[in-house]
Amino acid sequence: MGADNDTEATEAVEASAADLRRVLDGRWAWIRDEVRATLQDPLFAPVYDMATDEHRDRVMAQARVLADTPGPRLLFPKAFGGDGEIGAAVTGFETQAYGDLSLLVKTGVQWGLFGGAIVHLGTERHHERYLPDVMTLRLPGCFAMTETGHGSDVQSIRTTATYDESTGEFVIETPDDDAVKDYIGNAARHGRMAAVFAQLTTLGESHGVHALLVPIRDDDGNPCPGVSIEDCGHKAGLNGVDNGRLAFHEVRVPRDALLDRYGSVAADGTYTSPIENETRRFFTMLGTLVQGRVSVSGAALSASKAALTIAVRYGLARRQFHAPDSEREVLILDFLQHQRRLLPALATTYALHFAQEELVAQLHSVFGGESDTISSGDADDLDRRKLETLAAGVKATMTWHATHTIQMCREACGGAGYLSVNRLPQLKADTDVFTTFEGDNTVLLQLVAKTLLTNFRDEFGELDSLGMVRFVADQVVEAVIERTSARSIVQRLIDVVPGRDEDVSVLDRGWQLALFEWREKHALDGVTRRMRKGMSDGADPFDVFNSVQDHVLLVAQAHIDREVLELFVAAIDRCEDPATAALLNDVCDLHTLSMLERDRAWFLEHGRLTPARAKGLTSAVNDLCRRLRPQAGLLVEAFGIPDALVAAPIALGEEERRQRAKGQPA
Amino acid sequence: MGADNDTEATEAVEASAADLRRVLDGRWAWIRDEVRATLQDPLFAPVYDMATDEHRDRVMAQARVLADTPGPRLLFPKAFGGDGEIGAAVTGFETQAYGDLSLLVKTGVQWGLFGGAIVHLGTERHHERYLPDVMTLRLPGCFAMTETGHGSDVQSIRTTATYDESTGEFVIETPDDDAVKDYIGNAARHGRMAAVFAQLTTLGESHGVHALLVPIRDDDGNPCPGVSIEDCGHKAGLNGVDNGRLAFHEVRVPRDALLDRYGSVAADGTYTSPIENETRRFFTMLGTLVQGRVSVSGAALSASKAALTIAVRYGLARRQFHAPDSEREVLILDFLQHQRRLLPALATTYALHFAQEELVAQLHSVFGGESDTISSGDADDLDRRKLETLAAGVKATMTWHATHTIQMCREACGGAGYLSVNRLPQLKADTDVFTTFEGDNTVLLQLVAKTLLTNFRDEFGELDSLGMVRFVADQVVEAVIERTSARSIVQRLIDVVPGRDEDVSVLDRGWQLALFEWREKHALDGVTRRMRKGMSDGADPFDVFNSVQDHVLLVAQAHIDREVLELFVAAIDRCEDPATAALLNDVCDLHTLSMLERDRAWFLEHGRLTPARAKGLTSAVNDLCRRLRPQAGLLVEAFGIPDALVAAPIALGEEERRQRAKGQPA
Repeated sequence: MGADNDTEATEAVEASAADLRRVLDGRWAWIRDEVRATLQDPLFAPVYDMATDEHRDRVMAQARVLADTPGPRLLFPKAFGGDGEIGAAVTGFETQAYGDLSLLVKTGVQWGLFGGAIVHLGTERHHERYLPDVMTLRLPGCFAMTETGHGSDVQSIRTTATYDESTGEFVIETPDDDAVKDYIGNAARHGRMAAVFAQLTTLGESHGVHALLVPIRDDDGNPCPGVSIEDCGHKAGLNGVDNGRLAFHEVRVPRDALLDRYGSVAADGTYTSPIENETRRFFTMLGTLVQGRVSVSGAALSASKAALTIAVRYGLARRQFHAPDSEREVLILDFLQHQRRLLPALATTYALHFAQEELVAQLHSVFGGESDTISSGDADDLDRRKLETLAAGVKATMTWHATHTIQMCREACGGAGYLSVNRLPQLKADTDVFTTFEGDNTVLLQLVAKTLLTNFRDEFGELDSLGMVRFVADQVVEAVIERTSARSIVQRLIDVVPGRDEDVSVLDRGWQLALFEWREKHALDGVTRRMRKGMSDGADPFDVFNSVQDHVLLVAQAHIDREVLELFVAAIDRCEDPATAALLNDVCDLHTLSMLERDRAWFLEHGRLTPARAKGLTSAVNDLCRRLRPQAGLLVEAFGIPDALVAAPIALGEEERRQRAKGQPA
Repeated sequence: MGADNDTEATEAVEASAADLRRVLDGRWAWIRDEVRATLQDPLFAPVYDMATDEHRDRVMAQARVLADTPGPRLLFPKAFGGDGEIGAAVTGFETQAYGDLSLLVKTGVQWGLFGGAIVHLGTERHHERYLPDVMTLRLPGCFAMTETGHGSDVQSIRTTATYDESTGEFVIETPDDDAVKDYIGNAARHGRMAAVFAQLTTLGESHGVHALLVPIRDDDGNPCPGVSIEDCGHKAGLNGVDNGRLAFHEVRVPRDALLDRYGSVAADGTYTSPIENETRRFFTMLGTLVQGRVSVSGAALSASKAALTIAVRYGLARRQFHAPDSEREVLILDFLQHQRRLLPALATTYALHFAQEELVAQLHSVFGGESDTISSGDADDLDRRKLETLAAGVKATMTWHATHTIQMCREACGGAGYLSVNRLPQLKADTDVFTTFEGDNTVLLQLVAKTLLTNFRDEFGELDSLGMVRFVADQVVEAVIERTSARSIVQRLIDVVPGRDEDVSVLDRGWQLALFEWREKHALDGVTRRMRKGMSDGADPFDVFNSVQDHVLLVAQAHIDREVLELFVAAIDRCEDPATAALLNDVCDLHTLSMLERDRAWFLEHGRLTPARAKGLTSAVNDLCRRLRPQAGLLVEAFGIPDALVAAPIALGEEERRQRAKGQPA
């Protein structure tokens, strides 16, 4: 066989990075390409070891440049100069995360959180008055929700906004140190206004948490009267973001400062709201902020891709130890252990990519998309809750995945991975807080479990984690698996699985799907039973909840794992190019079997895996690693991260490497 | 019952932090106290966000102060102004790790690595001429072993030292970019001399890797002729250490620059060595550097303790979410999930503390201790190999434990854990490279496995990981469990375990010990069988090795896990105070059962746990978390970390916290 034939034969059956990238880039490929092009400007080159002040200035300058690109406008309604294409906006944000994550978070605060609060919690007059300046960054703003004493439990924040009907103003007050607004991005330096979340009181009556627009600095950049601003100082990462603390002492704002979509106050102090129940209102308001979680999740996805691109390329270039009878040393990615470190993480990154794609599509569908105004309030409640649950679960899973993956990539690159020039240190440090902000991951998983346990009932939102225990004990709750959009293909695959587990290959997708589904249902049934028993034994609800907390988290994780798998399966099913689909199929096997290998104890304990079959998972993962090893390079190329953003000399060609190794790129 | 009685009753049965600390401080308590006292000087306060140059200067200034304390002298023979108390020296180093880890690494390079190379690889004239200046830091030095292209595979380094018999000099040469000495601490700025590892050639014959003392800077601090010095630049952490790259072009050093304990060159170029076999000689030389691994392991232990002190104290102060019918919010350490994050890690830190204690004791016993000169060459070979194996395994286990624990502590402190003022970011960043330097952890575990497989035979050291496959295939290797010093107590406990697993409580120490032992032996037998079968099937040795690499690593981990458990059991057995012993017993249970819970899949697969019993492990871990929750504060107090070094405002009392929160301590 001649070389030419050989090449042709190969081309005929193998996937190409370009085809695969097309599949990954998906519906909003155009914005991905635009952002890729924008970020190649040296202005956006990744940096490290920059003095905090300088980094903050650089990020603000970068943000001003971005303000002139189409990206930010995508997020806002057309009526106010935006493009109203939220799916594209969030996809662009995901792509932007290949660059400096300080810039990402800074712009996320400005457009996503501050702008998002005005869009979703405000009404037309707020939109008209502020959105143009928010988009162009003429009005840099903050999202002042978290307090020193209350991060995860937003409902308990203690900042107050009391209506003074004699002047028609709200008085904003920070009652004590624990109520200081903390970790607020844009606060320490650039913010001029803040969306401040506070307990609203009118005519002596409390109405729960609402947001108000409060000026914090005057035109000269000095704090407004009554506003104290403190710098949070240096952080593990994201030091280009000026996080700060805000405290308010008798700060007065006019009545229309209240973002009044879900609750408005008349001149005489009369309070009205379209949602009567206070807790329900609270969760509806919080629900509009789901976009922040989707965005962080996307950022964690891109950071994982960047780290894997660096580590895989290094693994394909670095040699160490001689094989016997061989002159050349072994490529480190040829060692099984190195494959086991990198390739399952790469496969799971693919799985999570498609989960993120679905999440963005749902966000787009719920929050408006092509319509002229963004109509969160009109969205179907069930769709919205499904979105919130998926967002909470994927955000938690994705950000933990990023933390573990980037850490492992650092280690897989040895000493080179510890040098800042090779980007992994900054990626690690910047993303580390992703597991905490926009909802602590553990708390988010409890939110997922709560939804599953309360079965999308109206009571949702009225139950805290503890109330949930009573609710479950009181109701006949039956565990129902809510299928993803992949319903039909998943059911088809499950239906053809023979009855006995042992008769089926571990590579049988239907068997894998059935196993994931069975675990979720079984765990959900189990925790329901335990809660009910605990309550009927007369135990304290806190003790009941606390004694099953690990089980609750398992339920949530099992749920998300199943959804992620189903969404991966559906994405492969949609894939039109057979070679690409075949490759993705192998990647899906590696993802699924390494998940099953990780969790095989549970399946052994519950009689769904025999010991022999469980051991077989380890062999199968090893086989898949060997099988995907030749595709490793292609799999990271398909992420399409420009070399200017990969940046790490160890991940670039010989020549570029030598040059860059001498110093930081200009 | 009156309050007084209550207190007395409590005191009678409960352990105190002081008693526990006495047990932990152990044999070299005095040096721990000395170092604690020294480090309370504001000069040594932990720092962050310091410009690299300033940090390097500060660390050098701190090191000069330390040079005047007894610590460094402990490492060196009495004949040259030292104290020859290596166990105390390494214990002091461990304690010093409560402070800035840049200082630790800087001094570790100077006294441990550079000084250690001279002590262990040099002979009397090197000792006389250099050690006094090394101790006092008049001669700042480097340890130039790692090359850009060779870190883990030191035997393949390519720097050459060629003897020129016409001038009686060695010519040091860096043949290419991959042979540049890389990541060398003290090189970028302060080092004046380097112990350079190079392939030695005399009279056209190669003798393998040897170390030579090569001046790299003159008295004015300028690079010596032929020496190129490059700065490694910014790193993830440890930026107070000036890591650099060294390249040599025709650099000539006199004949006595060769550290010639294991190989000397006569004026005419004749080479002689007490160890004929080149590979064996190489491993003997490397073996003298075991002290570096023991030291890094100790540093990782202290960093874990510091992080846990911060996270546990925060967990005992921070409240979030209301329990039903309760005015006060719940302390976060009262949540089961929070306990499950922190307490098993705390228990394993205790386990590893006692493993480290044994490691230091073995190091002290092998390398001299009270004797006037440090006599590494005379040590019993078997003891030395046992020490090397234990050091490799504990270093790998400890540093991964530190990485995971510190990460988890950061997350457990939420946003506060991300602020540099709360120390966790710096702890994470500084320790991250511990899994890589002084031996990459994966490579070290292979070293452990190799030792187990070759059963302390003479062939040890002559086999690389691949040669091992042939060796195992050719020999009748029987898996023999080498008992730790805890032999008698362990055997006694195992002997009284009833026959059937199911009849025994999971808290039965003998049952736990038997299980750990059985796993090691079974895994070792299994991997031996697989290697032999692979070779007899005629497969390529590399493929055979590679296909069992994950199994090999499992063997090593099982071995270390058993040793760590046995050493913990022995430590409790030695503990004279019954209340302290009882508490340690609970801690040991939590450590052991959480290990078993983590690895329960393996035991299920191998029929040593029934599904019911495996599930029981999870309940038992939960029970132990609840049980140890009231002791959490005491368990971290017993580490005895001075508040000045804990430093994090979130881990200090209200008042100190408020003051420190305003800015970095002076």
